[in-house]
Amino acid sequence: MPKVSEDHLAARRSQILDGARRCFAEYGYDGATVRRLEEITGLSRGAIFHHFKDKDGLFLALAQADNKRMADVAATQGLVQVMRDMLASPERFDWLGTRLEITRRLRTDPEFAKAWTQHSAELTEATVGRLERQREAGRLRDDLPTEVVLKYLDLVLDGLIARLASGHAEKELGQVLDLVEESVRRRD
Amino acid sequence: MPKVSEDHLAARRSQILDGARRCFAEYGYDGATVRRLEEITGLSRGAIFHHFKDKDGLFLALAQADNKRMADVAATQGLVQVMRDMLASPERFDWLGTRLEITRRLRTDPEFAKAWTQHSAELTEATVGRLERQREAGRLRDDLPTEVVLKYLDLVLDGLIARLASGHAEKELGQVLDLVEESVRRRD
Repeated sequence: MPKVSEDHLAARRSQILDGARRCFAEYGYDGATVRRLEEITGLSRGAIFHHFKDKDGLFLALAQADNKRMADVAATQGLVQVMRDMLASPERFDWLGTRLEITRRLRTDPEFAKAWTQHSAELTEATVGRLERQREAGRLRDDLPTEVVLKYLDLVLDGLIARLASGHAEKELGQVLDLVEESVRRRD
Repeated sequence: MPKVSEDHLAARRSQILDGARRCFAEYGYDGATVRRLEEITGLSRGAIFHHFKDKDGLFLALAQADNKRMADVAATQGLVQVMRDMLASPERFDWLGTRLEITRRLRTDPEFAKAWTQHSAELTEATVGRLERQREAGRLRDDLPTEVVLKYLDLVLDGLIARLASGHAEKELGQVLDLVEESVRRRD
């Protein structure tokens, strides 16, 4: 019965990813050692790395899962709503600080940077699609190229990730996101 | 002649900071070991840690020097100009990725977070001062509290640091900063 086996594999994969997320959140990228990953998942290194090539593989799989979820929201409600969701439940994004720890590698490790870019493409596409639809509906400013609006929202998202990761998600940030949203909206 | 001695101390301090900046930029926070700091500065660990308490002390001194320089620009030309300067010479800000690597510590290490906040107070004060003067001169939107504008600019700065640290300072970012500037300016 291959179906059962596939369910089992998916459940095991999910168990490993949940543990890895907690491990990265608590110890950071370098601190998430194989021993700690074993403890937190309750699985042997053999079992863990049967499913994921290495720690980078685990990290990229988590980033991909996040990006998928964010892309679903971005496609229908826009990237600012993704940010509002982050602000509403910062504890779900504890592990995002790990994204900052690997920033230097994006600059110095071309292979890793390529994998990372592939994993974030889905979110970018969803955001661009939504921006184009908003533009057609006359809700987006028409004096700015979509590319500039996209980079602007991406920049704010990066800033928000840094803010959440440092534990400084102050109450004003809701108003800041209102300002961001309004600054790309068409004015009548 | 105490004057000579003071000059010598200041020069030595500056030599250590320059080396530490390069060391952090190349190897990251964890990778900037005492051995590497010795190699890159050409000084012994005894000489280095005569001037700075420990690696955190070196890191915070660099952040303080950056904040001082940024505060000087922010006070007269605003925080967006600080960002334009960063965009114009990204290579001067290679080491900023280290700021991201320590983000998790801001959340988990209250003493370090306190020292960090003290060091960034000067930049915040300079930015607030400039915003208040712009407001009085009628150049700032009057429908937003200064606190919200400040948090907005801070968020964009954090995003820009992440972008520069990852080596992805794309050409659109100049236009993005135009948009940021315009979104807080008073409209007639």
